[in-house]
Amino acid sequence: MIKPPAVVVGWQGDADSGFLRLLDQTLLPARAEYVDCRSVESVWDAIRRLVVRGAPALGVAAGYGMVIAAQAATAQAAADPARVLAELDKAAAYLESSRPTAVNLSWAVRRVLARAGGTAVPKGFAAVKDHGRGKDSAAVPPESGAAGASRLRQVVLDEARQIHAEDQAMCAAIGRHAEPLIRACRGVLTHCNAGALATAGIGTATAGMYAAHAAGHRFTVYCDETRPLLQGSRLTAWELTQAGIDAVVITDSMAAHVLGQGRVQMVIVGADRIAANGDTANKIGTYGLALAARYHNVPFHVAAPHSTFDLSIASGREIPIEERGGEEITEGFGRRTAPQGVRTYCPAFDVTPAELITAIITDRGVIQPVCEREIRRLLEGPVI
Amino acid sequence: MIKPPAVVVGWQGDADSGFLRLLDQTLLPARAEYVDCRSVESVWDAIRRLVVRGAPALGVAAGYGMVIAAQAATAQAAADPARVLAELDKAAAYLESSRPTAVNLSWAVRRVLARAGGTAVPKGFAAVKDHGRGKDSAAVPPESGAAGASRLRQVVLDEARQIHAEDQAMCAAIGRHAEPLIRACRGVLTHCNAGALATAGIGTATAGMYAAHAAGHRFTVYCDETRPLLQGSRLTAWELTQAGIDAVVITDSMAAHVLGQGRVQMVIVGADRIAANGDTANKIGTYGLALAARYHNVPFHVAAPHSTFDLSIASGREIPIEERGGEEITEGFGRRTAPQGVRTYCPAFDVTPAELITAIITDRGVIQPVCEREIRRLLEGPVI
Repeated sequence: MIKPPAVVVGWQGDADSGFLRLLDQTLLPARAEYVDCRSVESVWDAIRRLVVRGAPALGVAAGYGMVIAAQAATAQAAADPARVLAELDKAAAYLESSRPTAVNLSWAVRRVLARAGGTAVPKGFAAVKDHGRGKDSAAVPPESGAAGASRLRQVVLDEARQIHAEDQAMCAAIGRHAEPLIRACRGVLTHCNAGALATAGIGTATAGMYAAHAAGHRFTVYCDETRPLLQGSRLTAWELTQAGIDAVVITDSMAAHVLGQGRVQMVIVGADRIAANGDTANKIGTYGLALAARYHNVPFHVAAPHSTFDLSIASGREIPIEERGGEEITEGFGRRTAPQGVRTYCPAFDVTPAELITAIITDRGVIQPVCEREIRRLLEGPVI
Repeated sequence: MIKPPAVVVGWQGDADSGFLRLLDQTLLPARAEYVDCRSVESVWDAIRRLVVRGAPALGVAAGYGMVIAAQAATAQAAADPARVLAELDKAAAYLESSRPTAVNLSWAVRRVLARAGGTAVPKGFAAVKDHGRGKDSAAVPPESGAAGASRLRQVVLDEARQIHAEDQAMCAAIGRHAEPLIRACRGVLTHCNAGALATAGIGTATAGMYAAHAAGHRFTVYCDETRPLLQGSRLTAWELTQAGIDAVVITDSMAAHVLGQGRVQMVIVGADRIAANGDTANKIGTYGLALAARYHNVPFHVAAPHSTFDLSIASGREIPIEERGGEEITEGFGRRTAPQGVRTYCPAFDVTPAELITAIITDRGVIQPVCEREIRRLLEGPVI
């Protein structure tokens, strides 16, 4: 399997005394330093502070967070399996509260908890789809005593590692499907960070880039800096550079000009949520990029795990758009850049209509043309 | 005449002992402070440091800079008209060197110099078109003695004031033509700063906004922050707010979403250079905005003085695009936001093809449809 340019999230040591190690993304691109989490509180804090971000990476980190919870619970109450379970249950809710809108985080925490014999899916959680093999794993309720405690910690770590491995496999599968597309390009343009830093593997939008680069293809990736939070310049440019891929940072406003000059032969971005008809919510700025790509007849691709689809949503019109605080715009560089008291409008996402998307590249294969029939055919058909 | 929200450039006092006062735009939006220039060196420095910017405002400032040059030259050598002229000549070249690519600055300096009887147009200057009444003013060569010196200073100040007045009239004329368009909108979107801060009057892209607001119409202006240098958030939002116009700052990447939501009924921007066929060079990001406007069937207007047209250029393909230093992207406002050593691409302008422009609003009237025939009809026809 192709290695990611940096270890974003990982477990160090064994189930009994190991700990969670996270790349501190808040320090990028200036420094690459690691944060070691040995308490559930420190995991909560790291997630809250965006030390780790990106739906898949959050799921993996939260899964390991539950191993730390199991260490703490069994240390406190090894003799009382019911109390251990109650503690794990509390820890799950606590970890979920670090980023309440992160569905993947909640899913991972609940999956590990269920494996340990804990509380089933909480209220409002039923909508989250199965993300892999989790449903096949039978619950292993804790037994009393030191041996039981040790066994519980191992079961929980195994489940967290399984989530980790599934995430890496998902990225690799997207990479296999996207690689031929990247190999046909001298230049590629991407927005935000749907990269290795958002996953435990080689990313989603970046997966084909790493795969093509590993196979010897050389190309340039134009990275939209991605205002307001600059994930493109801070994160994507950093991870591509780490891997030796030629990255060029531009402001978001330069993308149409870059397309007009013929510098890129495809655009590829990630997705936060994809409706049944293919309309795709992604980081603000994706929509304008798709419009510019269409005008220049440059293919516009979305890369995302199949779990990103939400078939309960018919079209993008039903996707709520989160609005964020205006200080991300007015104080985006640590310095006030707009008049005091001026109004702002700060949507975090936009929706790109399916008609502007050339193809959606998933871990299960490529959807093209992008329409409900093809989406259902891929998602509801046999897993290849 | 409608007043601009702030005095950007002005002459204080009389010809003999007066001075140039400039709003220090480098301190905006945090503070509105003025810089007084009493030496040619301080004018040069203010222009170089971008205390004053925008083609029309630079022309006005440089014209007044020549008054200061006349004060210095007559103080030094009032008895020797030839030496006075030689000093003025030197000052003109010196002021031009503050921003060598600013055609308007050079034009104003030379116009004032010619009026004082100085050197004619320098090498390479013939391409600069007549910008108004300058060609009608006969040269007034300096006479010797105190009375002659005083008369020279007055002639030079009168010419500089004439440039100032013409600039204000140009803005007002654009405002008259753009006002009905603004009055038809609840929301307007603009990019960069083609505002009062770039002129001595009410701006170009903003002129219709000030006119409509003065007439009692209430509307919202969405201001693209305009990376990399943030003229939209720093300057446009500031000046509109000063005038009581409802300004909302967005990142450039949010414009397509704002258009998709139907929040604005027109886009209006300025221009740096317009080719004979209507292709328009303007701040980077304008092109992508025009593409988004077209997709949403929102009119896309350019507002510019008629002097912005360069009929010697057939189309936008012939307009060279200046590239600027990557640190504008990677170190936006004092903090590194991209990996050390990463490549960048930083075009300062882009070209919007005429086919995407609904109308060009000039001081001489509105050009619609935007094509060479209509442009020539307006520019070569009688001045209304």
